Amino acid sequence: MNRRDRVIELMKAGQAKLVAAFEALDGQAKFKSHTWERPGGGGGTARVLEGGRVFERAGINTSAVYGDAVPPSLAKQHPGSKGQPFFATGLSMVLHPRNPYVPAFHANYRYFETPSPPSPSQGEGVWWFGGGADLTPPYPFEEDIIHFHRMLKALCDRHPQADYWQLKEACDRYFFIRHRQEMRGVGGIFFDELSPVGQGDWEQDFRFVQDGIDTTLPSYLPIVEKRKGTPYGERQREWQLYRRGRYVEFNLIYDRGTLFGLQTQGNSEAILMSLPPYARWEFDYRPEAGSAEATALACYQPRDWV
Amino acid sequence: MNRRDRVIELMKAGQAKLVAAFEALDGQAKFKSHTWERPGGGGGTARVLEGGRVFERAGINTSAVYGDAVPPSLAKQHPGSKGQPFFATGLSMVLHPRNPYVPAFHANYRYFETPSPPSPSQGEGVWWFGGGADLTPPYPFEEDIIHFHRMLKALCDRHPQADYWQLKEACDRYFFIRHRQEMRGVGGIFFDELSPVGQGDWEQDFRFVQDGIDTTLPSYLPIVEKRKGTPYGERQREWQLYRRGRYVEFNLIYDRGTLFGLQTQGNSEAILMSLPPYARWEFDYRPEAGSAEATALACYQPRDWV
Repeated sequence: MNRRDRVIELMKAGQAKLVAAFEALDGQAKFKSHTWERPGGGGGTARVLEGGRVFERAGINTSAVYGDAVPPSLAKQHPGSKGQPFFATGLSMVLHPRNPYVPAFHANYRYFETPSPPSPSQGEGVWWFGGGADLTPPYPFEEDIIHFHRMLKALCDRHPQADYWQLKEACDRYFFIRHRQEMRGVGGIFFDELSPVGQGDWEQDFRFVQDGIDTTLPSYLPIVEKRKGTPYGERQREWQLYRRGRYVEFNLIYDRGTLFGLQTQGNSEAILMSLPPYARWEFDYRPEAGSAEATALACYQPRDWV
Repeated sequence: MNRRDRVIELMKAGQAKLVAAFEALDGQAKFKSHTWERPGGGGGTARVLEGGRVFERAGINTSAVYGDAVPPSLAKQHPGSKGQPFFATGLSMVLHPRNPYVPAFHANYRYFETPSPPSPSQGEGVWWFGGGADLTPPYPFEEDIIHFHRMLKALCDRHPQADYWQLKEACDRYFFIRHRQEMRGVGGIFFDELSPVGQGDWEQDFRFVQDGIDTTLPSYLPIVEKRKGTPYGERQREWQLYRRGRYVEFNLIYDRGTLFGLQTQGNSEAILMSLPPYARWEFDYRPEAGSAEATALACYQPRDWV
């Protein structure tokens, strides 16, 4: 099987496995399937669960798209790829739990390549893997965050090319909401190019992404299991919706995947399935000093969690 | 009084008058006042009402800011202004009613200038007025939209430099949400430069903006009065929140004022007071054919309403 097909298969198998696991955990709602085609070539399958017992909204998407010419923003980073046809595939997921004590979760793994020129003397096509996983708890529990980050550190430690500290710092930077001077949540890992273009070992990077997808459930499910039954009231719900407002701000103003998708006429429903089911805004809200909400806010700054 | 001070006074008087009128109409909640300073010079006053009987959230802001150098995005449009100190002032308002049958309303009037060079032989400083008003009804009533647009047409007809059809078309274009292929609402008027820079009569443009501010209440209040008591249920509320999701998408992805404000480290609470108190998203939702919601959708395309 060629590289493209191997990555596509990895993403699709990951999607199927995750859909099954989250559906089982929810125990009430089912993931609907929504397949779309991209006018320029390729398409994807969005799997979306709404109104569940545990998850208020969950989306697990795969896509594989082909194009005649590398989009300008990417060609700028990799001048050799300018004007080349390209292939991109990805698996992305966002889970918005109902209970405010359960963190929201996001992960994304993606692969990009341009074909190899006909003769090896003309150089090689470019390829890279990107991705990451991060946690957004309205009420952060230290032990949950430590568990999550330790799982990601263990993942990185299994692969020589992945430096947890570097990937964690990239995540802290990426999910920083500049106009709020705070992070969307408590971070995780993030990488644009796992191995810099031209320097990586394809098989090694493939194995990392495979391992990353496999780390999703053990890093997140135990937290969901532990918190999903915690009683909560109006106050906790309002804070959750308020924090989801920040999630919306981040995704619509800064998230490169979202903006790139919308600019390139991607499927807007599949792209925006990352948005929460409900969100709210309140003018100049400041949690009372010493409250659980104020403690939460303090967690949305870069910190060493392992 | 110099031009700057006259515009500042106009904006502040408009704010005071509108705050009083909307507070009286609401009859329950009061506008709080929140004054902020801009590190680079100037500041503003946000007046925000939340949790009212008629308005779930309403914000009426004024700002007047000074800077050492025209921001690059503006200097690009007006090369003569590059590197010049600048002054900008504005009045902007957003009203998010509680009842889904009452449309949301937005209007904005703004003024920008760079100082005249010391000698007239070096040319003149640049100045322009911008602004507009638009209506966003979750459930559009034809007679309301016609009233609104006719008031704006009458406003334009009173001023030789304002062509309603041109300003209405600019509004249809500006509030078009490309990734949804629909408008945020039913339009109104919009202008970036009422008279093109260097071609306008300052006094004439000032009078238009004054008249525009004065048109706010007669164009919008009768609609609020007529619809605020209409009974509604869960279905109408959910549709209202869903449409507010579009409002959020527009403001965070496309609205130039919002993005400019956030990029230039403006007061994020004052900038984002335009966001609705609650909003929601639902995957791939399509209103049933023939339903009130489907009829509403059809109104979010450019149309001649007068």
